Amino acid sequence: MWNCPYSNDYFAKFAEDFENEDASPTFSMLSEAACSHGITIVGGSVPESSDGQLYNTSCVFGPDGKLKAKHRKIHLFDIEIPGDITFKESDFFAAGDKPTIVDTDVGRIGIGICHDIRFPELAALYRAKGAPIICYPGAFNISTGELLWEVMQRARAADNQLFVASCSPSRDSSDSYAIWGHSTLVGPSGEIIATSGHEETVVVAEIDYSKIELQR
Amino acid sequence: MWNCPYSNDYFAKFAEDFENEDASPTFSMLSEAACSHGITIVGGSVPESSDGQLYNTSCVFGPDGKLKAKHRKIHLFDIEIPGDITFKESDFFAAGDKPTIVDTDVGRIGIGICHDIRFPELAALYRAKGAPIICYPGAFNISTGELLWEVMQRARAADNQLFVASCSPSRDSSDSYAIWGHSTLVGPSGEIIATSGHEETVVVAEIDYSKIELQR
Repeated sequence: MWNCPYSNDYFAKFAEDFENEDASPTFSMLSEAACSHGITIVGGSVPESSDGQLYNTSCVFGPDGKLKAKHRKIHLFDIEIPGDITFKESDFFAAGDKPTIVDTDVGRIGIGICHDIRFPELAALYRAKGAPIICYPGAFNISTGELLWEVMQRARAADNQLFVASCSPSRDSSDSYAIWGHSTLVGPSGEIIATSGHEETVVVAEIDYSKIELQR
Repeated sequence: MWNCPYSNDYFAKFAEDFENEDASPTFSMLSEAACSHGITIVGGSVPESSDGQLYNTSCVFGPDGKLKAKHRKIHLFDIEIPGDITFKESDFFAAGDKPTIVDTDVGRIGIGICHDIRFPELAALYRAKGAPIICYPGAFNISTGELLWEVMQRARAADNQLFVASCSPSRDSSDSYAIWGHSTLVGPSGEIIATSGHEETVVVAEIDYSKIELQR
């Protein structure tokens, strides 16, 4: 949710209808960036408006700027820790109803969003379908982030012996939802290849798919 | 494998036939300890000899000293990391063919042995069958231990929101198989409640099953 504050007060306001590209500045920007640089982009996630519903959606663009796939977050995040944090995504969003696998010029990619990473079955499905990497855009908060963000990425990678790449918004301490950050690349042994703190930054790392066969 | 060196050279020599209790000093000792202290014991794992096969087996005894369940390691551990470690359990052991759930005076317990922890499906099955705790006796080595022992325990606990208790032999630096150690209790949020180093020690911790419902 990188194009709006992570708050139920803003998701509807910032939601875009991707079917109407002209009225979708986020969609257009990602498409243009992919095209002008000739790269594949898994475009984090943004609120999508479609048929009167809101979705937490990640768009994948190819080097030609065309939309290749769209993942709607399957497992919505409802949390209630007394005295700490209460947040109900399901109050505003509808859940996606299918896994998303996309063939790109850098290989087959499975997509999950945030809380989707908590479910081993989705990652196992992506491995079964031949994906050597799963991308999880996510915005874990400080409570769940410190406890589980790294563990879940490493577990999904080690469970399935594939790469896991995550991207999180950076932390804005003035925000009501304090984001954990820590965008990370994990290798097929569950090892951290590259990661960040919670500040705004760019993480660059190389992925060697041959490590997967070695590990398996 | 706490009653013998962790080596294919010794498993057959130290294996006991649990059907013949008089000739099974390990079995008798565990049974006696459970009975004399009036406690439930998940007795780590030891080599079992049965019908001409060897198994890596964990026995659970009740406070009356009776055997309540026996888990035979399902997922045998074959590893080959060039220049580091080669070890093939399947050269000597036969694999167990079923999950093990046992009702004890401290609740329903799912049992896995060592490499069994790498498989999310087994843990998910134990949760589905109502176990609030899974016990994994295990002897990860230094390579896989540092990388994965803690991550796997925390992941299995967080995936299923239950307790995970592990027990490892301590490290004997003169041994050909250098054991990671780190016996641990993890809670249903994936948090480490108690753990050890690689030395010989006793870990005592309290388990509050009500944390499970809170977490779920």
